[in-house]
Amino acid sequence: MKKYAEIYGNELLNEVIPFWEKYSLDKEYGGYFTCLTEKGEIYDTDKFIWLQARQTWLFSLLYQLVQKKESWKKIALLGADFLKKYGRDTNGDWYFSLNQQGQPLVQPYNIFSDCFAAMAFGKLNEIDPKSEYAEIAKSTFENILRRQNNPKGKYNKVYPKSRNLQNFALPMILCNLSLELEPLLGSERVSEVTDSVIDLVMNTFYDKKSGLVLENVSAQGEFVDNFEGRLLNPGHAIEAMWFIMNLGIRKNDSELVEKAEKIMFQQLDHGWDEKYGGIFYFMDIKGHPPQQLEHDQKLWWVHLETLVALAKIYAYNQNPKAAEWFKIVHDYSWNHFRDKANGGEWYGYLNRQGEVSLNLKGGKWKGCFHVPRALLEVWKTLEKTER
Amino acid sequence: MKKYAEIYGNELLNEVIPFWEKYSLDKEYGGYFTCLTEKGEIYDTDKFIWLQARQTWLFSLLYQLVQKKESWKKIALLGADFLKKYGRDTNGDWYFSLNQQGQPLVQPYNIFSDCFAAMAFGKLNEIDPKSEYAEIAKSTFENILRRQNNPKGKYNKVYPKSRNLQNFALPMILCNLSLELEPLLGSERVSEVTDSVIDLVMNTFYDKKSGLVLENVSAQGEFVDNFEGRLLNPGHAIEAMWFIMNLGIRKNDSELVEKAEKIMFQQLDHGWDEKYGGIFYFMDIKGHPPQQLEHDQKLWWVHLETLVALAKIYAYNQNPKAAEWFKIVHDYSWNHFRDKANGGEWYGYLNRQGEVSLNLKGGKWKGCFHVPRALLEVWKTLEKTER
Repeated sequence: MKKYAEIYGNELLNEVIPFWEKYSLDKEYGGYFTCLTEKGEIYDTDKFIWLQARQTWLFSLLYQLVQKKESWKKIALLGADFLKKYGRDTNGDWYFSLNQQGQPLVQPYNIFSDCFAAMAFGKLNEIDPKSEYAEIAKSTFENILRRQNNPKGKYNKVYPKSRNLQNFALPMILCNLSLELEPLLGSERVSEVTDSVIDLVMNTFYDKKSGLVLENVSAQGEFVDNFEGRLLNPGHAIEAMWFIMNLGIRKNDSELVEKAEKIMFQQLDHGWDEKYGGIFYFMDIKGHPPQQLEHDQKLWWVHLETLVALAKIYAYNQNPKAAEWFKIVHDYSWNHFRDKANGGEWYGYLNRQGEVSLNLKGGKWKGCFHVPRALLEVWKTLEKTER
Repeated sequence: MKKYAEIYGNELLNEVIPFWEKYSLDKEYGGYFTCLTEKGEIYDTDKFIWLQARQTWLFSLLYQLVQKKESWKKIALLGADFLKKYGRDTNGDWYFSLNQQGQPLVQPYNIFSDCFAAMAFGKLNEIDPKSEYAEIAKSTFENILRRQNNPKGKYNKVYPKSRNLQNFALPMILCNLSLELEPLLGSERVSEVTDSVIDLVMNTFYDKKSGLVLENVSAQGEFVDNFEGRLLNPGHAIEAMWFIMNLGIRKNDSELVEKAEKIMFQQLDHGWDEKYGGIFYFMDIKGHPPQQLEHDQKLWWVHLETLVALAKIYAYNQNPKAAEWFKIVHDYSWNHFRDKANGGEWYGYLNRQGEVSLNLKGGKWKGCFHVPRALLEVWKTLEKTER
C-alpha cells in the first residue's frame, strides 16, 4: 500500500493543484472561478460560497501540511478576502451564491455555505493568525449550531409538525468541522459537540437491522417509510465513517474506530455496482425506485472519499480487506475519473456504465476540494505505513 | 398516418387506463396512489396534489370524449372529493403534497399544483356541472394569475432585484389552461390572457437567433448567460408548440400555426440524440455542461408530447416531414417506453442508451397523465385524417 503514497502525492502536486492555480483565480474581482471545462476554460462566472470556501481551506491546508509556499497562501487569501467582503448577509449567514463581482444572487438557504466558510477561516487562522479570521470562524460555527434544527430557516417547505426529518449531512459535517476548528474551540468544546454527533450518527442514523446509514430519519430518530426516509447515499455514509474514525482515534476509543470500519465495509459492499463497477450515488433501502433520476451515476467524490476511508483503515490495522478494496476502487477511479487526455483536475460525473456524462472539471457542485483533499489524505496516510 | 389512430386508441383503452383503474384508486381514504411499480404495487402512499389533479382531469376527459362510463366519472370524483376536502390552505393555495389520509406535508411552494387543480375542476364541471366546481376552478385560475410574477412566493431564494428570471413553464401551461377553462372564463377573457402569453412564448422565450425556445429569460425578457439562462428543455418547447397550434387554430391565425410548426421542428432537430436515438431532457444553448445530472436521459413525456405535436401538424397540413418524424419517434417510444413484458402504463425514465433506468410506472413526478393524454390526442387527431 505504501507505493500508492507517491502516486497520490504526484498526482496532487503535478496535475490537480496546477490546474486550479492556472485556471481558477479571478485576479480581477477576487475569489475563484469554479465552472471550468475539461480544458480549463471558464464557462460560468457565478461564485458559489461553499466552493469558494472549500478552495480557501484547501490552499491553506497545502501551505500548512505540504510546503510553506507564499503563492499558496496568496491563493487562500484571494478567496478569503472575497468571502469576507461579500459572503454574508446582515445576520452573518452566508449566501449560497454571488455574481462574479460579489453581489448576492441566492439567499442563505443552505447551511453548507456556513460550514465551509467556518472551515476556511479556521484553517486560514492557523497559517496566518488574525483575530478577524478566528472571529469569523467561531461566530459562524456557533451560528450553525443555533440553526441546526431548522437549517433551511424560512425556506423550509415542510408543513409544520407534519414530517420534520433530520438529515444526515449536517451531523456528518459537524463531526469533521468540530475537529477542524479544535485549535479555536478548545478540546472540551469539541468533545462536547462531537460526543453528541457521534451518538447521532452511530446510533440514530445507523440502522442496526440493515447495517446501513440512513440519509433521513424522523425528528424522534425513527425510520420513516417514504422517499426521503428510505434514501441511502453510500458515499455520504462512507465519508462520515472516516470522520468518525478520526474522532475515535482522537478519543483513543478503539471500539468506535472498529465500529466505523465495520459500517464502512457494509456500505461499500452494499453500494458497489456488481455489473459495471463503481459505487451508486443513491439507493432505496427497500429497493424501490428512488426519486433521484441520477441515482445510478458514479460520482467522483463518492469514490475518492472511499479511497480515503480505506487508506485510513489500512493505516490503522493493516486489514487486508482494506488493501483489496483499495486496489479495486483505485483502479476504477484512476481509469474512469482521471482525465488521461488533458490531465489536470479529474472528471466528476459518469453514467452507470462509467462513461463521462458531464465533461466538466468544475461547476456549481464541484470545485477544488474532494480530488485534492483525497489525494493529500491518501498520500499522507499511506506514507506512514510500513508497506 | 390514419392507421396509428387505432393503435393509439387500443393502447389507451386496453392497457394504460385499465392499469390506473386497477392499481391507483385509494378506496379507503380517497384520491389516488401514484407511486406504483412496474407490476402495479404501491411503494409509497404520499399524495402529490398536481398528480391527483391530473388524474381527476384525465378521467373527466375520458368521460367527456370517449364514453359516458359511470365508472370513469366515479374515478374522477374520487380525486376531486379528496382534493376539495384536503388540497388547499386557508389562502386557497394548493399544497404540494399530502399524506395518504390527506394531511398536508409540503407547503404550496409550487404553482403547478394550482394549475392542474384548476384544470381538474374545470373539466369536472363540464361533465358534472356544479357551482362549487366552477367556483374552485375560477378562483384558482385568478389566484394563479395573481401569483404569476412570483409563483414561489416566500420560498423564492433569489436575492431581491439580483436576477429574477422568468421561467417558461408557467406561460406555457397558461396557454393550455386558459383554453381548457374557456367554458368557464368566456372567450373574451381567454383571448385576453392567451394573447399576452402567446406573445411571451413566441417573442420573448423564443430566441430568433438560435431558433430555439429558452427555458429562462431575464425580467426584461433578455438572454442571460448563466446556467438557468442557457438552459434548453426540448420537450417543454415541443409541448408548448402544440398548445400554441391549438390557440392559432382557435384564432384562425395560420401564420401563428405555421410559426409554431417551424419552431417545433427546429427543437426536434436540435434535441434529437443522433447516437442513441430519443430526445435529450436538458441541453445548454452554448453546449456547456448543464447543471442537471440527468440531462441526457430520455423521458416519456418528452417523446409523447412530440408525438402529439407531430400528429397535430400532420392533421393540419399533411406535411410529409411530420409523418417521417412521427414514425421515428413512434418507433423509439413504443420500443423503449412501452412495457412489453407487463403491459399497462409505460415506463418513464430511460438512460441515454435507451435502457429503463427507473422501473416505476408512477412516482412523485409521473402519474396518470402524459401517456393517456397523448394516446388520446394522437388517436382523436389522426382519426380525422384522410389517410
